Amino acid sequence: MVMKKTGLASLEQVLDGSFSNINHPPQAPAAHPAPADGTLLRLAGLLDADIQATNQAIIARMHSEVELIPALAAHIVAAGGKRLRPLLTLASARLCGYGEGARHIKLAACVEFIHTATLLHDDVVDESLLRRGLASANAVFGNKASVLVGDFLFSRAFELMVEDGSLEVLRILSHASATIAEGEVLQLSTQNDLSTDETRYLRVISGKTAALFAAACEVGAVVAGRDAAICAALASYGQNLGMAFQLVDDALDYAAEEAELGKSVGDDFREGKLTYPIIIAHQKGDEAERAFWTRTIEANDQTEADLAKALDIITRHHAIEATIARAELFAEAAQQALQSLPASPLRSIMAEIADYAVTRRH
Amino acid sequence: MVMKKTGLASLEQVLDGSFSNINHPPQAPAAHPAPADGTLLRLAGLLDADIQATNQAIIARMHSEVELIPALAAHIVAAGGKRLRPLLTLASARLCGYGEGARHIKLAACVEFIHTATLLHDDVVDESLLRRGLASANAVFGNKASVLVGDFLFSRAFELMVEDGSLEVLRILSHASATIAEGEVLQLSTQNDLSTDETRYLRVISGKTAALFAAACEVGAVVAGRDAAICAALASYGQNLGMAFQLVDDALDYAAEEAELGKSVGDDFREGKLTYPIIIAHQKGDEAERAFWTRTIEANDQTEADLAKALDIITRHHAIEATIARAELFAEAAQQALQSLPASPLRSIMAEIADYAVTRRH
Repeated sequence: MVMKKTGLASLEQVLDGSFSNINHPPQAPAAHPAPADGTLLRLAGLLDADIQATNQAIIARMHSEVELIPALAAHIVAAGGKRLRPLLTLASARLCGYGEGARHIKLAACVEFIHTATLLHDDVVDESLLRRGLASANAVFGNKASVLVGDFLFSRAFELMVEDGSLEVLRILSHASATIAEGEVLQLSTQNDLSTDETRYLRVISGKTAALFAAACEVGAVVAGRDAAICAALASYGQNLGMAFQLVDDALDYAAEEAELGKSVGDDFREGKLTYPIIIAHQKGDEAERAFWTRTIEANDQTEADLAKALDIITRHHAIEATIARAELFAEAAQQALQSLPASPLRSIMAEIADYAVTRRH
Repeated sequence: MVMKKTGLASLEQVLDGSFSNINHPPQAPAAHPAPADGTLLRLAGLLDADIQATNQAIIARMHSEVELIPALAAHIVAAGGKRLRPLLTLASARLCGYGEGARHIKLAACVEFIHTATLLHDDVVDESLLRRGLASANAVFGNKASVLVGDFLFSRAFELMVEDGSLEVLRILSHASATIAEGEVLQLSTQNDLSTDETRYLRVISGKTAALFAAACEVGAVVAGRDAAICAALASYGQNLGMAFQLVDDALDYAAEEAELGKSVGDDFREGKLTYPIIIAHQKGDEAERAFWTRTIEANDQTEADLAKALDIITRHHAIEATIARAELFAEAAQQALQSLPASPLRSIMAEIADYAVTRRH
């Protein structure tokens, strides 16, 4: 196998690093941290011991005697990211009163493995060269290794769930995994298809993103032994938070500063993805604008200057604001779902996370 | 999404077809069915009702509202193949005295879904254009859809296991899935690497092929409620059968008639895969021959005429015979493992399946 040489993070470097890149972003200058990031920091502060334990579990359980597996996994784990999903499992478990034991740690690692597996496969599918400001795994190790290591991490996640021994947790996460794949396939079907409407788009992001947010939160309530109503409330919090998060992701793809985003701006446009900003701009557009979208998105016939023009049209129709407004509705629903739990500092921060999802800049 | 148009099998066509292509090969003229195929036919005859039920379960459970999923899944399911793995689950369950109930049906479908998912990902990894004599799913639907539908089928397999409700089955199949991925990644690492020896090669095929054969048999014994010794005996039967099967696969890649094989001869050579025939030929080769392997396999510098020359060298060193002889040892071990079970017509046919694995021509 021809492997592209590059500076790889070793397992030790990953171990040295913090759980997430909130404190130590591995990517270059972090410009101005947005104020919203303070919320994530405070949540991480409350859960510090759990986070360290989850980090250890992730490193320990991505091990394999086949060296390429931990090498590639370390590359994507070292790239950090917000680690929002495992953080949600930890937070939900604690919010639901989970006390002694380390089941939430193991399941947080599961959730991160499932997420990492989908990222690896996504980057192959999208032919992405950047992930979180670093070269993507497929760019470094090739598509083949990314597909197969994704499969390994996915299988390893199920091995961890089996060790945990709860069929209910297995049910939630196997169903979420199938739903993620369905959302990704649906997204592929809507690519370059301007007939994609808001309903279909929301179905895509409900599958590809919100399903795992929901499952991550729900399993936290399950390990805490809470009843069905509380489990459903946490699932609803996660589901709505995930919707808000993905809508904002799709807005940032057009609106962010590239250095802050850690990936290229306009990727969705170049790939002909039918995300909320384009759906709105296309809907509100005049004939000439619709012809522009037909050429660039449907016929996939783009020139260098087209991204700027797309941004112009999107700005003219306030499509970014509309996307953020839609995200705010989901964020409010997420906060509403938390009302079934007693007030606590942790609940407040989890509610603020929904605000963070909408106000973040990367 | 741009989808390449082609004649796709509908779900109905799949339903009309038999469980496997033993009776109705979907690919063109089946030339002369090898006598060994009679064994598979007799096994299928003994398990006819189970096979029909498994077929129905496979069709029913690969359904999704996202249309591309059943369309792509039907394409690969319609292509048939021997369906050896689910057949092994059914046979093992019955051999172990499983009576009432349909757990073995559901788990046979699981096993086939896991296998299908790995095939979809394999074909992406290998950039294969043919699978079982038909255009591969990636050639028809593209790599992206193949990766994602593979993920869906894999997740669906775990959903089915959760419905079944046995943590022991989940343990066996999640471990097998991780082992398959490890084997595939190891294979990728050995590609183009002439230092790969027999031990490493056997580790690759133990992971990528034998692990699922072993798990397929073991879960049959588990649903029948047999003790650990019998479960281990069935796992050993499957493991050794899988080793024999893969060795012969690797021999056929150089020795088969293309029309019978249903895929191109010499694919492994073109991909620089270090399979048993090449390892033997390289080991026994003189200096000039080693230089040939270094150029064609290690440097991946091949001309049109090189496959014929590779076949010449392989023939000169009886490397195909050596591969088959190695397979025979595994087949004997498989038959030995069956001795812990009482003699029965089914046990005899399962023993013959080990002979079939070695004598088959495709």
